[in-house]
Amino acid sequence: MSQFINSRNKLVTEALNGFLRGQEGQVSRLDGFPHIKVVVRTDWKFDQVAIISGGGSGHEPAHIGFVGKGMLTAAVCGEIFASPSVEAVLAGILAVTGEKGCLLIVKNYTGDRLNFGLAAEKARARGLNIKMVIVDDDISLPEDVQARGLAGTLFVHKIAGFLAEGGKSLDEIFDATQSLIPLIASIGVSIDNCTVPGTLKDERIAEGMAELGLGIHGEPGRELIAFENAGSIMKIILSNLQSKIDNDQKYALILNNLGGCTPLEMAVLREEIAKSDLVSQLSLIIGPEMLMTSLDMHGFSVSILPSSKLVAEALTFPVGPRAWPNPVPLIDPIIADLPKIQTKENG
Amino acid sequence: MSQFINSRNKLVTEALNGFLRGQEGQVSRLDGFPHIKVVVRTDWKFDQVAIISGGGSGHEPAHIGFVGKGMLTAAVCGEIFASPSVEAVLAGILAVTGEKGCLLIVKNYTGDRLNFGLAAEKARARGLNIKMVIVDDDISLPEDVQARGLAGTLFVHKIAGFLAEGGKSLDEIFDATQSLIPLIASIGVSIDNCTVPGTLKDERIAEGMAELGLGIHGEPGRELIAFENAGSIMKIILSNLQSKIDNDQKYALILNNLGGCTPLEMAVLREEIAKSDLVSQLSLIIGPEMLMTSLDMHGFSVSILPSSKLVAEALTFPVGPRAWPNPVPLIDPIIADLPKIQTKENG
Repeated sequence: MSQFINSRNKLVTEALNGFLRGQEGQVSRLDGFPHIKVVVRTDWKFDQVAIISGGGSGHEPAHIGFVGKGMLTAAVCGEIFASPSVEAVLAGILAVTGEKGCLLIVKNYTGDRLNFGLAAEKARARGLNIKMVIVDDDISLPEDVQARGLAGTLFVHKIAGFLAEGGKSLDEIFDATQSLIPLIASIGVSIDNCTVPGTLKDERIAEGMAELGLGIHGEPGRELIAFENAGSIMKIILSNLQSKIDNDQKYALILNNLGGCTPLEMAVLREEIAKSDLVSQLSLIIGPEMLMTSLDMHGFSVSILPSSKLVAEALTFPVGPRAWPNPVPLIDPIIADLPKIQTKENG
Repeated sequence: MSQFINSRNKLVTEALNGFLRGQEGQVSRLDGFPHIKVVVRTDWKFDQVAIISGGGSGHEPAHIGFVGKGMLTAAVCGEIFASPSVEAVLAGILAVTGEKGCLLIVKNYTGDRLNFGLAAEKARARGLNIKMVIVDDDISLPEDVQARGLAGTLFVHKIAGFLAEGGKSLDEIFDATQSLIPLIASIGVSIDNCTVPGTLKDERIAEGMAELGLGIHGEPGRELIAFENAGSIMKIILSNLQSKIDNDQKYALILNNLGGCTPLEMAVLREEIAKSDLVSQLSLIIGPEMLMTSLDMHGFSVSILPSSKLVAEALTFPVGPRAWPNPVPLIDPIIADLPKIQTKENG
């Protein structure tokens, strides 16, 4: 399938340059293309804990779109769906880490764990104070399988960025995010797989079927199910999250477009959340937006996190990056009186 | 092809409710579903000229996403790709038009011209002061064919909204937009058609081909051409706009995602604009964003408008709607020094 790219080899570097051109100088990239693909804040003063995330590309706006005041200090990018190298992560760490130290926020994939982890070791060997948290919010797979990092990672970016902006210490931010991560639960569903540039599309989801728990790199999900409609699929998604939900608790919820859903579809899916039993427990909704995409995957994911006072304050605190939407409460549609439209001629 | 909807019949009303639930009460809809689908500002005080636009649905965020302070006062929505009725448009006019009058901004399609025009007549018969402008920015078709309204319509929404917010009269806003519309030029290209819910997809664009000038409802474009890559297709798009470009003039440019392009593709396309000869004449870039989509169409459009002092001030003036991106100048990517990453162990 054709795409508006020039070549798979140049895709990420060209896209990064194209991205940087529209950011009014608020972010830069480290020298070292094509190997080093690191986006950093230009207003960074080294007086707070640095927050770094990243991973393979193809999940935009994650992670580059979240670099800015109040969120990430830097994003380290790999090629499409491939972890950045140890050197690239280390370059990112060295570029932004000052006396306050640095938190690495890593999604739970082997390559990312390994490369961010080794880079952290090398940075520590230079005397830098580095801590790392691993986000494993996917609840779709059996408990004996390593849970993947999905769009729930955005909760961690936002809360860590808020705490850093508020002058908290690395230990405080590490402890806070470590205690929140086990509470984050996400699950996705797709009715078509993504198209990885330069490869044949894996057409394993037949027309009329949906794959529950498909990974954000197109990895197999839990099961193929018959796809009926938006209402039934949202019921399935929310019932899967139910085991993680405490009836006495309020939640923040991320409704994430995996890349290929239209704004109309996403609005219908928000309407289905509003019609669900869960609605009375939802205090803040983030999205629908593209936050953690999987190229053009025709699917969505839902992530939840108990909304403590800290979580609510952190999620709603204004930030620089436009890609982060303002979390809002779900309200009933306001319906205004219809003007009387009969005219003399017709009524 | 499956979609995350419940039924074609309920798609637009469910999506409108889903949209309204996330707007924090800043917009409402008129009573009268399913026939009347009109979104209006809730903070409207009738002390400025009302700005109304609309048309068929399937172009989100247009038009509902642009209702708010500084842009549209109301949006009148039809079913997917179908003009709203005369009654719906009249309801919208009556709901927001005060003594200052109302400007209707209509894309040049027969149904919209007719229904917005008839509604304007009925409103005038009630003593309201109504004017209408028709946007026909598509340059892809021969001159003897009625030019369509495309994403260049966003220029008109933004500038009319700015003038209304600044207290200008209906005559002043009408004259200003009437004189700008002939200067707006747009052209789109797609490598796959859109999927209209409930109908068979028109698969007329073969793999490896692109359709130049495809309409935002999937109407035939000017020609099918071989698709090579992002660079060559952007050259073709910009060369088509060349006849509308005065070498002594600066321009504002909209880079619009028609719905099916990934953020990576759109960033590469912005990079191609930055590499083009036109770049020295571009003062403001709006996008890449989804602004005037065509459901899931895998394509993009480029729109230009000479950037006078008024145009620049109007386009950059902050507005309520999040769907309007801040226009920015294209800059060179900022490249920061790469930290020395040799450690004692490896270097």
